[in-house]
Amino acid sequence: MDQWQERKRPVCLERRFEFDGYSSTRDFLDKLGEHSESTQRFPDISFGSTYVNITIRPEDDNPDAQLNEADRAFAAQIDALLG
Amino acid sequence: MDQWQERKRPVCLERRFEFDGYSSTRDFLDKLGEHSESTQRFPDISFGSTYVNITIRPEDDNPDAQLNEADRAFAAQIDALLG
Repeated sequence: MDQWQERKRPVCLERRFEFDGYSSTRDFLDKLGEHSESTQRFPDISFGSTYVNITIRPEDDNPDAQLNEADRAFAAQIDALLG
Repeated sequence: MDQWQERKRPVCLERRFEFDGYSSTRDFLDKLGEHSESTQRFPDISFGSTYVNITIRPEDDNPDAQLNEADRAFAAQIDALLG
């Protein structure tokens, strides 16, 4: 979890993953897609050939919502996808 | 091609695609991934459950590079993936 940055404006968790080539990036994105579908939780993701940036906003849509343990657990699950 | 915005700083083509649900978004992303692999051209992509933003920078890495016909053709190929 320590590689995630916690931001205040807007409240979110962010992490950048770097890969040696597109096929590793694509494998990770595929696992991420499956995880999103199984949890029905869809973080904002941006990527290019060798990087993936992930932004996790509080699951609670309330504009003043803070990050909670479920949000941090979701981040840890994404870390685990790296295998 | 008319739905792409041409930007000056930085020079690029940008378009936002909206979908009715994650499975349509994922289908489009999968086709985009295959197209990127076959052309070895990797635009910057950001997405959430129902949107995909694509940024095409000039293929020529030169910082003053301008968009050319190949860049616009690539954008048109992406439009065609919508089917």
